Amino acid sequence: MSSTRACLPPRAARARFRAGANGPTAGLAPGHTQANLIAVPAALAYDMLLFCQRNPKPCPVLDVTDAGAWTTPLAPGADLRTDLPGYRVWEHGELVAEPTDVTGYWRDDLVAFLLGCSFTFEAALIAAGVPVRHIEEGRNVPMYVTERPCRPAGRLHGRMVVSMRPVPPDRLDTAIRETALYPSFHGSPVHCGDPATLGIADLDRPDFGDAVTVEPGEIPVFWACGVTPQTVVTASRPPFAITHAPGQMFITDARDEHHRVL
Amino acid sequence: MSSTRACLPPRAARARFRAGANGPTAGLAPGHTQANLIAVPAALAYDMLLFCQRNPKPCPVLDVTDAGAWTTPLAPGADLRTDLPGYRVWEHGELVAEPTDVTGYWRDDLVAFLLGCSFTFEAALIAAGVPVRHIEEGRNVPMYVTERPCRPAGRLHGRMVVSMRPVPPDRLDTAIRETALYPSFHGSPVHCGDPATLGIADLDRPDFGDAVTVEPGEIPVFWACGVTPQTVVTASRPPFAITHAPGQMFITDARDEHHRVL
Repeated sequence: MSSTRACLPPRAARARFRAGANGPTAGLAPGHTQANLIAVPAALAYDMLLFCQRNPKPCPVLDVTDAGAWTTPLAPGADLRTDLPGYRVWEHGELVAEPTDVTGYWRDDLVAFLLGCSFTFEAALIAAGVPVRHIEEGRNVPMYVTERPCRPAGRLHGRMVVSMRPVPPDRLDTAIRETALYPSFHGSPVHCGDPATLGIADLDRPDFGDAVTVEPGEIPVFWACGVTPQTVVTASRPPFAITHAPGQMFITDARDEHHRVL
Repeated sequence: MSSTRACLPPRAARARFRAGANGPTAGLAPGHTQANLIAVPAALAYDMLLFCQRNPKPCPVLDVTDAGAWTTPLAPGADLRTDLPGYRVWEHGELVAEPTDVTGYWRDDLVAFLLGCSFTFEAALIAAGVPVRHIEEGRNVPMYVTERPCRPAGRLHGRMVVSMRPVPPDRLDTAIRETALYPSFHGSPVHCGDPATLGIADLDRPDFGDAVTVEPGEIPVFWACGVTPQTVVTASRPPFAITHAPGQMFITDARDEHHRVL
């Protein structure tokens, strides 16, 4: 199915998910921006927006909806309640449901945050000749909860989650440069080298996703990750939240290249 | 006085303003980041933060304080109520005072926004060999209220203000590139060329600042401007706000080069 799916324009991909299809969105609608979703009650929206402002690398904001709205200018005609393949519903920091449609869970006071996703910069890395190991190996990117605290905002706090891609030393400069040009998609790495610096004990045991091969001499490079808001939810225990299911992103009509600063 | 003042470290410059000195901050503490200030009551802080998120070119957020606080990690030990050379106090969109100290006006519910300022990218332009006319001519940069509306947020709306610098055609690429690398300081231009596209009738009659010479063949280049929040205040008429006085910025301890994406 993948080649057929990959060729779908964003609107058609969203229509399939609206009709009930689910699964990872990696590689779908190439060139179009995918986004992380976190929706919280309006009473918590200021804390969430401030948290994002204070932690722009893990939480780069692409759009924020008005309370109760399920639409965004990033994808006219889309419905944020139905057009993602999978969702997670949280109450007091506990995962209570994993539906493919959250129409029944949506509330009039929900504010949805759409955050940049590393799928955008991975396309840029590949285009620049930097290998992306988990794509080569057909796996999900390995993600780790670090010991590095995010800067808190109001009631919200939590530790930064990072994703890791091994990079050959002669491609490190390119990898840093290419991702730095996408500050709306996590930007440059937060760390290169020894995982212990971030409090990561074992690269072979990621907290989310799959381990990948690190070849001798390759440098593990760590980027801030859009899964961070989910650790904030579990740490801060807001009364209610809806997020995307990991890897099952919102596909927008926006073009990746429009977000490149140069 | 200028050469003596320019050599002051940020802390010493702030101490002079705290002691009562005032005047423009252009050229002071070179290499250190200067910031626009707008403080609003907490009840309006979400709208303000959302406005900034939706209009990142005119309103790039560097820091947001907790309600009532007058401190920022951008300048440990600084007091936002006293350490700017000049302030403007607004009630219902009307300018009611222009003091050099706002300690008596500060409220427990005020949230202060520090926004990036073009002084940072002007230093980068000069370093890259792009002439900056208003500096050459010893004037304030010309600023214009455009016909382009900002994207509204809650109760806040207003038109974008731009600053203009004439650029020789063979430096245009460099000017765009250098400023694009500073997305926290207005980023790349919003328009190059015909002022009428932005609804500007006459370059010789700026709404703020001073007109500058545009040599034959030079292209007027327009960047989003940090004065935009003041037009938002006059258009949206919030009950209360405090801003910096034009050109009299907050000098932080942060280094400009740390904000460059590459």
